[in-house]
Amino acid sequence: MGSIVAENHKSLMLFSGRAYPALAEEIGQALGVSPTPTDAYDFANGEIYVRYNESVRGSDAFVVQSMTEPINQWVMETLLMIDALKRGSAKRITIVVPFYPYARQDKKHRGREPISARLVADLFRTAGADRILTVDLHTAQIQGFFDGPVDHLFALDLLADYVRNKYDGRDMTVVSPDSGRVRLAERWTERLGGCPLAFIHKTRDITRPNEVSANRVVGEVEGRVCVAIDDIIDSGGTICKAADALFAAGAADVIVAATHGVLSDPATERLKNSQISEVILTNTLPIPPEKRLDKITQLSIAPLIARAIREVFADGSVTTLFGGLSG
Amino acid sequence: MGSIVAENHKSLMLFSGRAYPALAEEIGQALGVSPTPTDAYDFANGEIYVRYNESVRGSDAFVVQSMTEPINQWVMETLLMIDALKRGSAKRITIVVPFYPYARQDKKHRGREPISARLVADLFRTAGADRILTVDLHTAQIQGFFDGPVDHLFALDLLADYVRNKYDGRDMTVVSPDSGRVRLAERWTERLGGCPLAFIHKTRDITRPNEVSANRVVGEVEGRVCVAIDDIIDSGGTICKAADALFAAGAADVIVAATHGVLSDPATERLKNSQISEVILTNTLPIPPEKRLDKITQLSIAPLIARAIREVFADGSVTTLFGGLSG
Amino acid sequence: MGSIVAENHKSLMLFSGRAYPALAEEIGQALGVSPTPTDAYDFANGEIYVRYNESVRGSDAFVVQSMTEPINQWVMETLLMIDALKRGSAKRITIVVPFYPYARQDKKHRGREPISARLVADLFRTAGADRILTVDLHTAQIQGFFDGPVDHLFALDLLADYVRNKYDGRDMTVVSPDSGRVRLAERWTERLGGCPLAFIHKTRDITRPNEVSANRVVGEVEGRVCVAIDDIIDSGGTICKAADALFAAGAADVIVAATHGVLSDPATERLKNSQISEVILTNTLPIPPEKRLDKITQLSIAPLIARAIREVFADGSVTTLFGGLSG
Amino acid sequence: MGSIVAENHKSLMLFSGRAYPALAEEIGQALGVSPTPTDAYDFANGEIYVRYNESVRGSDAFVVQSMTEPINQWVMETLLMIDALKRGSAKRITIVVPFYPYARQDKKHRGREPISARLVADLFRTAGADRILTVDLHTAQIQGFFDGPVDHLFALDLLADYVRNKYDGRDMTVVSPDSGRVRLAERWTERLGGCPLAFIHKTRDITRPNEVSANRVVGEVEGRVCVAIDDIIDSGGTICKAADALFAAGAADVIVAATHGVLSDPATERLKNSQISEVILTNTLPIPPEKRLDKITQLSIAPLIARAIREVFADGSVTTLFGGLSG
Amino acid sequence: MGSIVAENHKSLMLFSGRAYPALAEEIGQALGVSPTPTDAYDFANGEIYVRYNESVRGSDAFVVQSMTEPINQWVMETLLMIDALKRGSAKRITIVVPFYPYARQDKKHRGREPISARLVADLFRTAGADRILTVDLHTAQIQGFFDGPVDHLFALDLLADYVRNKYDGRDMTVVSPDSGRVRLAERWTERLGGCPLAFIHKTRDITRPNEVSANRVVGEVEGRVCVAIDDIIDSGGTICKAADALFAAGAADVIVAATHGVLSDPATERLKNSQISEVILTNTLPIPPEKRLDKITQLSIAPLIARAIREVFADGSVTTLFGGLSG
Amino acid sequence: MGSIVAENHKSLMLFSGRAYPALAEEIGQALGVSPTPTDAYDFANGEIYVRYNESVRGSDAFVVQSMTEPINQWVMETLLMIDALKRGSAKRITIVVPFYPYARQDKKHRGREPISARLVADLFRTAGADRILTVDLHTAQIQGFFDGPVDHLFALDLLADYVRNKYDGRDMTVVSPDSGRVRLAERWTERLGGCPLAFIHKTRDITRPNEVSANRVVGEVEGRVCVAIDDIIDSGGTICKAADALFAAGAADVIVAATHGVLSDPATERLKNSQISEVILTNTLPIPPEKRLDKITQLSIAPLIARAIREVFADGSVTTLFGGLSG
Repeated sequence: MGSIVAENHKSLMLFSGRAYPALAEEIGQALGVSPTPTDAYDFANGEIYVRYNESVRGSDAFVVQSMTEPINQWVMETLLMIDALKRGSAKRITIVVPFYPYARQDKKHRGREPISARLVADLFRTAGADRILTVDLHTAQIQGFFDGPVDHLFALDLLADYVRNKYDGRDMTVVSPDSGRVRLAERWTERLGGCPLAFIHKTRDITRPNEVSANRVVGEVEGRVCVAIDDIIDSGGTICKAADALFAAGAADVIVAATHGVLSDPATERLKNSQISEVILTNTLPIPPEKRLDKITQLSIAPLIARAIREVFADGSVTTLFGGLSG
Repeated sequence: MGSIVAENHKSLMLFSGRAYPALAEEIGQALGVSPTPTDAYDFANGEIYVRYNESVRGSDAFVVQSMTEPINQWVMETLLMIDALKRGSAKRITIVVPFYPYARQDKKHRGREPISARLVADLFRTAGADRILTVDLHTAQIQGFFDGPVDHLFALDLLADYVRNKYDGRDMTVVSPDSGRVRLAERWTERLGGCPLAFIHKTRDITRPNEVSANRVVGEVEGRVCVAIDDIIDSGGTICKAADALFAAGAADVIVAATHGVLSDPATERLKNSQISEVILTNTLPIPPEKRLDKITQLSIAPLIARAIREVFADGSVTTLFGGLSG
Repeated sequence: MGSIVAENHKSLMLFSGRAYPALAEEIGQALGVSPTPTDAYDFANGEIYVRYNESVRGSDAFVVQSMTEPINQWVMETLLMIDALKRGSAKRITIVVPFYPYARQDKKHRGREPISARLVADLFRTAGADRILTVDLHTAQIQGFFDGPVDHLFALDLLADYVRNKYDGRDMTVVSPDSGRVRLAERWTERLGGCPLAFIHKTRDITRPNEVSANRVVGEVEGRVCVAIDDIIDSGGTICKAADALFAAGAADVIVAATHGVLSDPATERLKNSQISEVILTNTLPIPPEKRLDKITQLSIAPLIARAIREVFADGSVTTLFGGLSG
Repeated sequence: MGSIVAENHKSLMLFSGRAYPALAEEIGQALGVSPTPTDAYDFANGEIYVRYNESVRGSDAFVVQSMTEPINQWVMETLLMIDALKRGSAKRITIVVPFYPYARQDKKHRGREPISARLVADLFRTAGADRILTVDLHTAQIQGFFDGPVDHLFALDLLADYVRNKYDGRDMTVVSPDSGRVRLAERWTERLGGCPLAFIHKTRDITRPNEVSANRVVGEVEGRVCVAIDDIIDSGGTICKAADALFAAGAADVIVAATHGVLSDPATERLKNSQISEVILTNTLPIPPEKRLDKITQLSIAPLIARAIREVFADGSVTTLFGGLSG
Repeated sequence: MGSIVAENHKSLMLFSGRAYPALAEEIGQALGVSPTPTDAYDFANGEIYVRYNESVRGSDAFVVQSMTEPINQWVMETLLMIDALKRGSAKRITIVVPFYPYARQDKKHRGREPISARLVADLFRTAGADRILTVDLHTAQIQGFFDGPVDHLFALDLLADYVRNKYDGRDMTVVSPDSGRVRLAERWTERLGGCPLAFIHKTRDITRPNEVSANRVVGEVEGRVCVAIDDIIDSGGTICKAADALFAAGAADVIVAATHGVLSDPATERLKNSQISEVILTNTLPIPPEKRLDKITQLSIAPLIARAIREVFADGSVTTLFGGLSG
Repeated sequence: MGSIVAENHKSLMLFSGRAYPALAEEIGQALGVSPTPTDAYDFANGEIYVRYNESVRGSDAFVVQSMTEPINQWVMETLLMIDALKRGSAKRITIVVPFYPYARQDKKHRGREPISARLVADLFRTAGADRILTVDLHTAQIQGFFDGPVDHLFALDLLADYVRNKYDGRDMTVVSPDSGRVRLAERWTERLGGCPLAFIHKTRDITRPNEVSANRVVGEVEGRVCVAIDDIIDSGGTICKAADALFAAGAADVIVAATHGVLSDPATERLKNSQISEVILTNTLPIPPEKRLDKITQLSIAPLIARAIREVFADGSVTTLFGGLSG
């Protein structure tokens, strides 16, 4: 009668914030598990209330939140969901944020600024998150902001395979729309079989990251299909000015591929009016109906996330999903 | 040449979030110091950018933020402001939040809920706040949620002195609008010279704290001016139903006094339509013009906060401001 | 030969402090497990020695301690027991403290006081406790003092069912003996089928919480059986003065129900001499033989705690034990 | 109007626990400052209440507590005093514990024991202590248990100078009463001008550190005055058996010198009945009147502590008080 | 006699590790303070011993260490120096590491790697460092790895002014030797008055960062003086292959400018044999005599560091040293 | 479809640092598991690169490192290995360091020194180590430096059994070579059946722990085989001078037994030239071929470590391996 011994099972539970429930649903279908029924709503002054309708004790919890607008609302909801899981005795808490919030404030561009991406990592940790699962961080160093395991997934294969299949036989050049994505463009050129590389040399006002000034094409683009790549399409200014510069430099066509479609105003207007022929995005963020241009192709990231969650739960390897490259 | 010795000065700097700059201005005027010029704006997807225009090194920093709607926005802005101060080498960081956010979720009302008020305290701490200065916490235990000094100010004197002066000579009864504020009502009766006390016995649905059901007056109110007191007027339901019950029980008049005027919809409508003759609030939260009913009196909390900040900076005593009762 | 794979069992072990071994024994019997044999004694200068006689490696450990007098002795013993478990590689450590120590110092009543209940939570955490299981906290906010899961059990059903059964058919009024327990009284009225509610309006000297001054009954008690409820009966002053006031106001009978019988002097004398006809308590704290008055009924909390431990161990739901109300 | 600049003073405040107020008084007199008036008392169930009667904001606080019996009471009071200072905005908190509690449980003597001395260091830290000032730790490694500065004072000079002056001209041998103090005995021999060294080879039952078994003298003691040294005299068993062995081996006389006089029963009886001619102790712990044997000499440690506090406050050097040997 | 009040001075003390004492000396001369005399040596098995010869109590301590080979030795020495300062009651500890160790392992390049640069930040923090002062981090995100203020200095002005003065009137192109430094090259073009920009498109084997494969020049270099810039020159492979590619593409001349001259083998050989005409470095790392090629110009970083330390000590602004760009 | 339930296995994985792979191999053979294939090498400037070739997710990881020269290199490699395991989602990380680094700097011998052994414990913890498994700590208090379980193994049985078997029938005296190991010598005497005990009374210059001054034998050694015991043989000075003193005092023979053979120069020379007839060591540290004197006997610690790892993995008892004495 010295102790009670029992078998030790583990139990995967999926939770969804309110930002983009369809993504969690799709991940759940791929996994074969429904998001746990949850009460969540806003009080009149904006404070959020969260409560799970089923016991979460001992669960291996995965909280899916898509960090779309209003982003502070969803950051706070995620923190509250984590706290409720921690206090409800979940065994392990992984937050699944395909688009990492505040990733672009990952350093002090000038003195007396916050390093918001580090702060966010600490907030998640403080609330009780054990692990983060995310897609295409703005800079890979953000992994190091979190004091715990980060599973960092890449949409490159998903996007590049689509481009390769559709534009097979065309002369392509991969283009970085600014000086900060040249290395990513290099990875694309490898995936597209070694095609040329170009980038746009521009000046950016640090205090207003959405605004761009002069642009100059560096590299060979004349008569070629330019694949302008980026991690994020936000207001669309950078990419559309890049497209202008590319067409001015003789590009035959310009298509755009990016993981995260933030598409804040006036992105839709700019993309519609630009000569860009196709914009390929994933669904790490929702695209509201009024922003769904014909030229936008949205590929689903859910199968990749579902596979990663399955590996995490089963103590398998996420790295092997990417030939050794992931977190 | 073994060391460089210098005098050690201390320097108070005031910072204001964007939620309610007029309050910080008023505090600053009382102190004789202007809020530090700060760049703060939202990016298109809602992410906040913050930067101070002057060096904050070594400062004794006081960050004033009024936690009004949209509250998650202002919580996050405050966290970013703290992080920027910490990384900018401020010496000590005190956040001045006259209305503490998420104070009503100070416990698990039911299983699998968060304890949001504790979470918020930990978020402030993680970002780098050393101290909190606040007014009339929903429950005084919230002081204990923060791992550091909390200066807890009371608006009771401000409100009660106004009531005593204005309603001098009337027979008053202090009324708690529900069972949770009876102790606060007791403090009011002491301040009003020992008048009677009553409360409304009601049932509340835990999952929807803004909605009230049956009400019964316990205590003596007939023919008397009822001073219905509370810490917060949110949607106004509780207080207006209390007023109905009081008038039904023969009250001569009902006035309302509370520290925090959240006034979320449909509070304005309810108060306007009720028989309540006066609503006395402080300016811990701003009241937008469209909600400024004639029957609302707003008293300024700024002088009290300014005095407390001065004591904190000078290593004086905040406790003595309240005859030994404060934090 | 890359790894050694084994099944992963979990093992519940029960540990008992020396304060009240009979309670741990009773819990153990309900669970079907004996408290682990432990060497514990005091050195001559009061320092405590603790050692477990069996391996605790990998165990899901539950440490039962009843925080009775001398309470600092038992707090320290609990901390030492936790440390020994942590360093002995227990997998998870839950402390079972049916009466939470220092719960009444849950805020600064005046400036320059400690917040002892928060301090105690931090001490438990520092020593290595992962979770707390407790009964009827003095204020529910204390849950938020601990940075981890708190399973908060309620004795209300146990006590109220006893009262309902025994006093069936009598006209009852639930009475809060002071302004701070009115909400608890509301819960009792619901459980007793909607009977009336009253409370005692009294003045308390903050610096001496055990001493009471004037009392006034607010609510209807004449000719009724008054059920005076509280969470704690300490020196008995509050409850006995409340009883006096109730009888003075025409009560037919007064019975008392409370979870925690601290019964420090002169509680026994006061209760014996009062007109209170029955005092119903649980055994969260031991009642020494010399204090066991005939009018005291002690109900056992052990079955409830045992059920909660079983749910915690099995990753079941504690919330469902209380219809969604527990932690 | 950008900031308010003020001079930055520092202010030493002294606080005394209730264990041994005379020690704090004596330290205060040497420093020229009185212990801050403090309300402290026990509630009926043993819970301690503490409150300072003067503002402690910004102070450089020194909390003096003598860890005598009932030791858990004083440990807890010290923790509460620290918490009240932290929450009252003291700038720096140094605890002055001349006798470090639980110092003898500084390792696991056997498996499944706590390491109590480390736990105590963590408790002090958690409560908010920044620094520790202590005298003659049982093992110097305990300094490393605290995550912060420890000023470690030595009573060796005080004790040895007394012995040297009084027993000048006698042939002395320094004796370690067991195998664990031989190194300390070496330091004594240096201080006494290079006299011989001996020790008692004994067997100790680990589970009952107060009980001793066989004793054998190793070293030359015949015809000499033996100075049996130790850090602590607790129940007196070790030292009295050592004395017996020394006399049996031909010692001319045996005197005892130790820093900490715990003197728990039956120490007084044993010392009185032994042939030991003098017992020299300091006042790190109080000696109650009934234990003040004629053969006991008590030297005051207060001047040394006062000098150390003064150096700490003035950012001077504590190390130089001991020729480089202190912490 | 309630408290002892004293003036509060602050005192800057400088400390030097053994890696490169000349740098600390030069900084000290610029500041007007000598490095504090320190005993430091290695025990026979490699363990390091450190002790300061003067009291460090209350000091504002700056520890200068140049993280040259053997780098793990100097990392550990720095940690030990910090610990000794912390335990010796230094008031604030700033580590001055002009070259941040392990900066290039700032993310997981592949799964199952450490993030060494974050680990190092945590080690510094754990030992007790309050702040870091460093020069040209490999990626600016590393600032966010440290939980505290980081003063991040830039050598760009120092290097670029030298180049501008010396090569005035020549047609220059700034060249990034790989895709990861294009943004840095952009900053150089601004500083050099808007000259063209080029980069080398190369493939790098992730597991062997020192080895490079194919190279292609993207941008206009023919007949121009190419200023190949980088933050670090390690084994020199990247920069020499870049130079080869530039000369092959018709460059008139190639000069190299970089902040940190790691110069590990075979860098010296490669640079000597290359057609590069000048290599401009700073002294963040020492260059041993045998590696001092005639074509290497070493500029001193000490004046910049000294100015930053002075601002930090005086609570001035480091940001203004760089027109708002620094940390 | 509310959750996915799976069995929960546990998986032991063994990892080896580069310091002494043969020890990890031997432990692995005893366990039946190979060290996990790992890429580890030094970059040209000394920075270490580590990567595991197999997934470590969910593993119960044991990292074996022998802290031999260059010790800072291996400390840092261990920290990087831990970080890579933590970020690779290992479930539990135990570091196996048979010789604990910096154990001799376990206190401040003089002011302004670090407490390096505590620092090292904190570094391990910060990197992510959950537990430590080690052999014969220099002082047992070091267990308390780590905030988690420490399994402390003893080589005493291994060494003493060898001595007892080989020197059976001889008259033995156990000798402590200085005053700090007398207690260890006592344990040896018990294990060798109660033989006499002696020690060398010497003076040591604190700032140069490897150098010894005068020696005097205390205890009976004439005509006996002296077993000089210690935990560490470093430069050999202490033990060889002890041997000289013992032979001078008439010892028949001197043999040496110690757990850790650091053997830094000139230990080999000293031992070779001394009259010591046999030196018995374990392989907690490697002995390079040029130091393998004929008189050195090296016993393998691997079986003991393997047994302890097996108990830790299986949640068995390590204490029982030593009759209750271990951690």
